[in-house]
This record gives sequence, structure tokens and C-alpha cells, in this order.
Amino acid sequence: MVKVGIIGLGTVGEAVVKNLEKNREIIKARAGKEIKVIKGVIREPNKYTHLNIPLSTDYKDVTRNPEIDIVVELIGGVDKAFEIVSDALKHKKAVVTANKALLAYHRFELQKLASTPFEYEASVAGGIPVIKALRDGLSANHILEIKGIINGTCNYILSEMKKGRDYKEVLKEAQEKGYAEADPTFDVGGFDAAHKLLILASIAYNIDAKPEDILIEGIENINLTDIEFAKEFGYEIKLLGIAKKRDSEIELRVHPTLIKQQEMISKVEGVMNAVSVIGDVVGETMYYGPGAGGDATASAVISDIVEIARGNSNPMLGFKIPLEIEKCTLIKPDNIVSKYYLRIAVKDELGVLEKIAHILAQNNISIESFLQKPRDGYVKLLFSTHKAVEKDIKKAIKTIEKLNFVIKPINYIRIEE
Amino acid sequence: MVKVGIIGLGTVGEAVVKNLEKNREIIKARAGKEIKVIKGVIREPNKYTHLNIPLSTDYKDVTRNPEIDIVVELIGGVDKAFEIVSDALKHKKAVVTANKALLAYHRFELQKLASTPFEYEASVAGGIPVIKALRDGLSANHILEIKGIINGTCNYILSEMKKGRDYKEVLKEAQEKGYAEADPTFDVGGFDAAHKLLILASIAYNIDAKPEDILIEGIENINLTDIEFAKEFGYEIKLLGIAKKRDSEIELRVHPTLIKQQEMISKVEGVMNAVSVIGDVVGETMYYGPGAGGDATASAVISDIVEIARGNSNPMLGFKIPLEIEKCTLIKPDNIVSKYYLRIAVKDELGVLEKIAHILAQNNISIESFLQKPRDGYVKLLFSTHKAVEKDIKKAIKTIEKLNFVIKPINYIRIEE
Repeated sequence: MVKVGIIGLGTVGEAVVKNLEKNREIIKARAGKEIKVIKGVIREPNKYTHLNIPLSTDYKDVTRNPEIDIVVELIGGVDKAFEIVSDALKHKKAVVTANKALLAYHRFELQKLASTPFEYEASVAGGIPVIKALRDGLSANHILEIKGIINGTCNYILSEMKKGRDYKEVLKEAQEKGYAEADPTFDVGGFDAAHKLLILASIAYNIDAKPEDILIEGIENINLTDIEFAKEFGYEIKLLGIAKKRDSEIELRVHPTLIKQQEMISKVEGVMNAVSVIGDVVGETMYYGPGAGGDATASAVISDIVEIARGNSNPMLGFKIPLEIEKCTLIKPDNIVSKYYLRIAVKDELGVLEKIAHILAQNNISIESFLQKPRDGYVKLLFSTHKAVEKDIKKAIKTIEKLNFVIKPINYIRIEE
Repeated sequence: MVKVGIIGLGTVGEAVVKNLEKNREIIKARAGKEIKVIKGVIREPNKYTHLNIPLSTDYKDVTRNPEIDIVVELIGGVDKAFEIVSDALKHKKAVVTANKALLAYHRFELQKLASTPFEYEASVAGGIPVIKALRDGLSANHILEIKGIINGTCNYILSEMKKGRDYKEVLKEAQEKGYAEADPTFDVGGFDAAHKLLILASIAYNIDAKPEDILIEGIENINLTDIEFAKEFGYEIKLLGIAKKRDSEIELRVHPTLIKQQEMISKVEGVMNAVSVIGDVVGETMYYGPGAGGDATASAVISDIVEIARGNSNPMLGFKIPLEIEKCTLIKPDNIVSKYYLRIAVKDELGVLEKIAHILAQNNISIESFLQKPRDGYVKLLFSTHKAVEKDIKKAIKTIEKLNFVIKPINYIRIEE
């Protein structure tokens, strides 16, 4: 029998207990062993008496409990969770966590500390077994690229905006439906997706980066003009987490992205998640499913427990043994190379286009397509560019914004092809 | 070091050798051990001298070689492969195979024989790690349903027919492009997909069925009228392998299927494969990627070798230990329940619709939607039905075909919703 202690009995914790019980027989058959939750740790002692497991308010009753084999951490957040997981690993417990924030900041310290199995399938894309796909299913491949729709809130909002609905209206509805928090910044600002991207990138490239090191932009500035442009040129707008390998350098970035409608990942609608991975041997594979919710997340947590019960042994992050030949470094956000879409509102004057085109050319930016939309009293100029360097685009935008016929601010979206 | 012998050095075998060499460092880092091919077995001794490995024409030089840890079987076909894999297992070798036909017929005998690891990721959906997803990623779930686009040839032909192109014309082109064999029956008749479906179903349900036991229909009778109907009612036509659980009974079937355009799996175009799995805990997840090709298949074969090198231990088919409470039985093809689309060509006479509707009602079939298309000299009646039983539909069709105003044969497509 494998004995489990769960720290944190919120939506996910409860769902783990419930589904371990509900599917007890089949999980035992698949794992080869019975799996039993013998202790839960909670903050408020009176709240969880409906769960039929012994409870405690002290995490050490789990992390230092000689009877317990696997510690499941489900409290979320960074500091306290780090304390708990570190304590569990020091006491030679196997650990399962769903905590993306913990891993975004401390995954390399935890990897160092872990002499026992450490699993975290639920930390990225909820119920989709994408961690296992990357670590096990694609182990023959150099990973060339990862593109993920890994924040359901953003994908829901962008999907609804395609119907012609306004950002603020949709956000409000998402909050009412429980898809978005009262303070939505963590989701719509791209930070949640960044945490998950860092985890995926560490598996693929063994690269140590913090959220602060990478480019993160949210969907707050997307408006209906952008949606209209996207339609006109055959794109969808998605918030993507992107990891790309260029020689031994890695690009990591989270931002709204224009992707061609033929791409499978552009067809993912609503709150669903998907991660597309390009490997040098297999080509593109994609993993699709629910990225959040108690049951979906519990499915991933339990699959980790089963893996540990089976005695399976996988590297926690990139490699089981150090890869000497290939030490990847992070590309600075300013040096990212992408195609761009620019939305520039200008007063309807003579010579406007010429001046803007001149500044773009001066900054090594060449135009791929151009659309001009008249509006009440002003004109919208919509450009897409060929590949350009991030810092050149930023400099060009700054220069153009100084022109007196330009109505600030200029908005831009990166294009992925 | 893990020592590998490969039996069969065709497209996939060569790609395995090539990619193990090309990605040697990263595979070693991920596996925790070096992986080396020390022997290849071929039929014609002079054909493969460009591969830098010792060759033999006797498979026993691999299956009974005391130096070899893992035997990789890539010759395809049933009888000879069964002999080879059995011999390897009897000599306590771990086995990796990409051979779906072998597994469709002998997977339960091989499971019984296997006291060593037995992996077969490449046997279903090429490079997509869907076997691992089912066995490991979704281990917390009762699998309620599997729907797979698991034959690229059929999906390519159906995708092209959507552009208004004729079946025969597209098939010819597919043959020229190498997507379809000179005798295409195995692909377009649904048999290849059936082999793969049986493998997936054994993992999900531990159910022992042979291709002969299940309903298999190909895409040969799909025509442009059906494509037109599908468009009109918001469907795509896909050849699906379907496994469904109804209490402790399992439906297994392969046939062209009308699926709603909103379903993610209906958006899979061209030669690509995808498998959608519905679990009782996680809901729907889907796995997408290349279903064939030397490199894609090699990616899966190598990932299996890595799993074995890591010492991971997973049940070969359904369960590591027998699941006493749940013994699944196969539903007979005649008792399958589905919605149906019927295409009936009739002479333009009075009372035709009434007579057909009467026969449908007599057989417990109720009409959901109806479309009438005039053609030169005759009329096409297109029905979709509510859920009905397979044998009732067959009986109704037989009865309707006897009416003298009906131009035979009547065609039907099952609808999945």
C-alpha cells in the first residue's frame, strides 16, 4: 500500500480525495498497489469534517510522518509551499505538487534537494498530461519549439471577443462565471502563463529562468480593430507561451500572438488549453484539454501518485544526467526576433504613410502587408512586418509616437508563423 | 549501457538507428544511460551496408544474444513477428515493437508471455505518445470514450474531398504521393484503424477482441452528396475508431462518422492523426500529431527504449493487477446505438416520403432532420435520425431498398455527438 498525505484541501485537494475514493479499484489495478490518503492538512480545523480522513493543522504531521510515502502539496503560493516541499524532500518523502508558482521560482533548488521522486503534472495545463509527454513521450527529440495556450481565462476572453464583444464586457462576464479572479491581472497580464512556460522550458532545455527574466505581455490592449485585422488576414489572436531554440540560445516569451488559422493550436476555443511541441525527430505534436478545474487537476495529481506507486523513475527537469555539450542560455527580451503587427492611429493628413514607412525602414523593419481603415475623424493604419528584432520595433514605435499626427499609443502584436 | 538489437531495417528501422545516433547525447542524458544498437537483422544481407552496425539474417542472433537487453521488432506482419517477439520474451529480453497487426491479433498472448518490459508506443498514431497518455497520464480515470483519427490515408482523402474532389481522383493522387498503397484496401477499408483501435481499447478496458469481432467500415462509399450534406448541417466526415463504455459493455467500431464542426477532432486535416479520450475525472483530452513516417515513428520507438532504460514499469495492457469488479464484454455490432445519416435516391413520385417515413417509424427510427435535393431525373432524400439500434437501421434499409421507386443502394453514415 502507498500512503499519501495531502497538504491543502481546497477545490483540488478535495477532488483528489474524492476521485481516489471513487476510482479506488481501477487506480489500484493500474498502479499495482492500493493508494490511501491517511492524513490531510488544513488551515481551519472545522471546515473539512465531511472528508473522511484524519486532519491536522500542522504540515509536519505529514512531511515528517514516518508512515507517509507521498506528500501532495496543494496550498499554492510560493514561500510557505517552498518551506513545506523542502521539508518533505529533506525527510525523503516523494512529492507531488500542482503548484506552478512554487516551481516558477524554486524548481532548480527543489531538483537539487530531491533524492526521491518529484512529480508536478498538474502544474501546467491542468488535466492534460503534457509534462509526461515532454519528459517521456518525446524523449528522442531535441525540442525546437513549444507554443502553449496555457491560460484558459485569456483564451476565453479572446474567443468571446471574436464575436465582436468588448474586452471589458467579456472580462466582467468571465469574473461572474468564475473563469477570472476579482483582480484578473495574474491571468490577463500573462503571469500565470509565464509560470507554466518556465516549467515546460526547464523540461525541454534544463534552463533556469525566473518570471522576471522573460518577456511577459498580457491581453489588456487587444481591441476589436485587432480582431478585425486578424480575420482579414487569416489569423487568430491567442495568448501564447512560447519557447524556441535558436542554436544553443532559448527564447522565452508570453504575449498575445497572431497565428494562422490553419495552425491546429489556433483552433482551440474557450477555456480549453493546448500545448504544441515541435521536436526535431517527430515534428509537431499537440496536447489539448481542460487547463483548470478541481477534477481535471485532480486527474493529473493522481496520475503522478500512480507513477510513483509504480516505481517509475524520470528526471524531474531536463535531464537525468547532465548534458555537457549543450548548455542553453536565455535570449534577452530585446533580442527576440519575430514578425509584428502594428496598429497606428493617425490624423488624416498628407504624407503620413510615407513618414511612417521611412522610420520603419530606418530601423530595419520591412512591411509585409498593409491595411488602412478610416474611422470617425481619424485613420487606422495596420501593418504586418517581416521578421524584425524586438529592440528595433520598440525604437521605431517610440520614434513614430513622437510624430505630431500620430494618436498615441501605438499597439503591436507579435506574429508567429 | 543499454544494448539494443533491431529486427527489420526498413524505413522505420533505419530512422531509429539514424536518430539514436544523431541525438545520442540528449537521449543518453534523458535516459540516464547510453543506448547502443549492437546488431541489426535483415532479409537481404547486401542492402544495408551503409548502416554502421553489425548485421545478421538470423533473428536469433538478436533474440538469443546474451549481450542484448532490448529487442526492437520492426518487420511488420503477424506470424513471423509473433514468432520473433515470442522468442525474445522467452529469452527474457525487453521488447519494443511498432507492429499494430501483431498486437491486434496476439497482444493478450504476448502479455501473458512477458515477464520483461514490453512497449509499443509506435503501434498507434505514429509519433503521438497516446499509449503513454492512456497508460500513465490518464491513470486516474475510467475511460468513457475514445475517438481516433488513426489512419492518415483516409483523413487525407476525406480532407481533399471537402474541396469538391472525387474519391477516385483523390485516392489516385494519394497513391502517387505515397500516402496510399497500390492496394489501398487495408487503409481505406478501415482495417488499419481497427488494429490500432483494438490496442487502445485493451489499454483502457483490458478487453480481448480480434478485428473480426468488431464493426469495420471504410470510406469507399462516401460521395460528394454526403460531403455537401455534412457542410449543410455543420458536420465534418472523418473515419473514426471509436471505443465506448456503456456500463460494463464496450462498443468498438471503425467507420466514417459525421462529427460536429465544433468538436476539436473534426478540425484535424490532411494526413495528421488525433485521438480524443474522455475520462470520467478529467473530461476530454486530445492528442494530435503525425501518424506515420519513418522519423515520427522512430521518435515513438526510441521513447520506448528510453522508458525501458530508465527502468520504468507500466502494465502492458489494461491493468497491472487484475481488476476483479469490472469485467468488460464486447457489444455485438448489431446492438450498437448511434444516430444515423441516410442517403436515399428515389424516382420523383407521389407518396415516396410518406412510405419511407412509415418504414423508419415501424423500425423505431425517428427522423431528426431532412433535406431533399433534386438531381437530373431523380431525387436525393437525406435524413438524419435520432439514436437508433444498428440492427433496426439495417432492417429498415433492407425494407426501403425493396420499394420499387428506390434506386439502390442506400448509403448511411453514423453520426457521433
